[in-house]
Amino acid sequence: MATLGKPLLYGYFRSSCTWRVRIALAFKGIEYDQHIVNLIKDGGQQITDEYKWVNPMQQVPALHIDGVTLNQSLAIIEYLEETPPEPPLLPSDPKKRAQVRMICDNIVSGIQPLQNLHVLQKVGEKKLEWAQHFITRGFQALEKILENTAGRFCVGDQVKIADLCLVPQVTNAERFNLDIAPYPTISRINKSLLQLPAFQVSHPSCQPDTPEELRA
Amino acid sequence: MATLGKPLLYGYFRSSCTWRVRIALAFKGIEYDQHIVNLIKDGGQQITDEYKWVNPMQQVPALHIDGVTLNQSLAIIEYLEETPPEPPLLPSDPKKRAQVRMICDNIVSGIQPLQNLHVLQKVGEKKLEWAQHFITRGFQALEKILENTAGRFCVGDQVKIADLCLVPQVTNAERFNLDIAPYPTISRINKSLLQLPAFQVSHPSCQPDTPEELRA
Repeated sequence: MATLGKPLLYGYFRSSCTWRVRIALAFKGIEYDQHIVNLIKDGGQQITDEYKWVNPMQQVPALHIDGVTLNQSLAIIEYLEETPPEPPLLPSDPKKRAQVRMICDNIVSGIQPLQNLHVLQKVGEKKLEWAQHFITRGFQALEKILENTAGRFCVGDQVKIADLCLVPQVTNAERFNLDIAPYPTISRINKSLLQLPAFQVSHPSCQPDTPEELRA
Repeated sequence: MATLGKPLLYGYFRSSCTWRVRIALAFKGIEYDQHIVNLIKDGGQQITDEYKWVNPMQQVPALHIDGVTLNQSLAIIEYLEETPPEPPLLPSDPKKRAQVRMICDNIVSGIQPLQNLHVLQKVGEKKLEWAQHFITRGFQALEKILENTAGRFCVGDQVKIADLCLVPQVTNAERFNLDIAPYPTISRINKSLLQLPAFQVSHPSCQPDTPEELRA
């Protein structure tokens, strides 16, 4: 049960979209409770009638916060950005903000939906080749975009929302046996980000529902 | 050629993502030039090396504005919202803003990417059934969400970014022969929005590249 006033995150250790939100919560120093939605067990707890009340899209994450329940990771993160705005996850300059959001959307709309669990279930036996195809297509574009925008991280030298989307997507790519060496900018930024505490405490290898054999 | 200082929209009359941006530009009263990227002709002008420089994701829309080139419709619309903020396309209350963005992302990440041209090309001969499956799944969820958030439009009684995403998605659904009668809230809002000038001037039936036989 959530303590009154503490946000409640509905998520799953391995969900890349949930991980984005966990990084944002850690980065903002927001304490929260977790309700585990096991996407595999019993055919997936996300498709239960009970969970449909939380998120009609039958996906994770969802966040219950300040009396509302939100789904969609970026909408949640933008809310977290607007309510406790420090430390900022968006730059102050509108053009830089736009670049951050563009990179986010290229991952969140352009890559990740195509390797979502319910999509791969529909694809069937060719799912590995399918996922590799769309991640490769997306990373080729992303590498070019990042060549223009990156500093130490995706846009400049500070952690922004784009970075919260990049790392979970790279981890997904690795799960689908993709070599990320052909993307030196993606690779370098990912490596730097994984050193930061907000990315480490939120990592899929150390969540309450991470199975023993996958723990770091 | 774009007049100096006038934004240049790279788009295609039938692209639902381009339409979102056209509505925003019309709503904000921003004059712009259009560069047509025909997604069908010659195997698709979006896959040319020339266009890859504009948008490495090889999709429309892209917008060249204020010296930067942005891709991804929502990132573009958020930029337009922040630079000439009136009339507003986001509410002032953070929870309402979050609801608007949640609805946007449910369409922009949850539905539309699965019926994007390059995805349907990969799906092959079962593409109609595929598109219908994912739009139906998304609309069932969206209808439930809108039951809680809608007034005259998606969130309350004012046009917000969610509305800019809804109408093009409904038009797509109709193109894939889906009956939207089972979604009374979606249906009602869509009908109201189509009466508004910003949705009419931006409509796919009256763009510079709309073929004669599809003109309204």
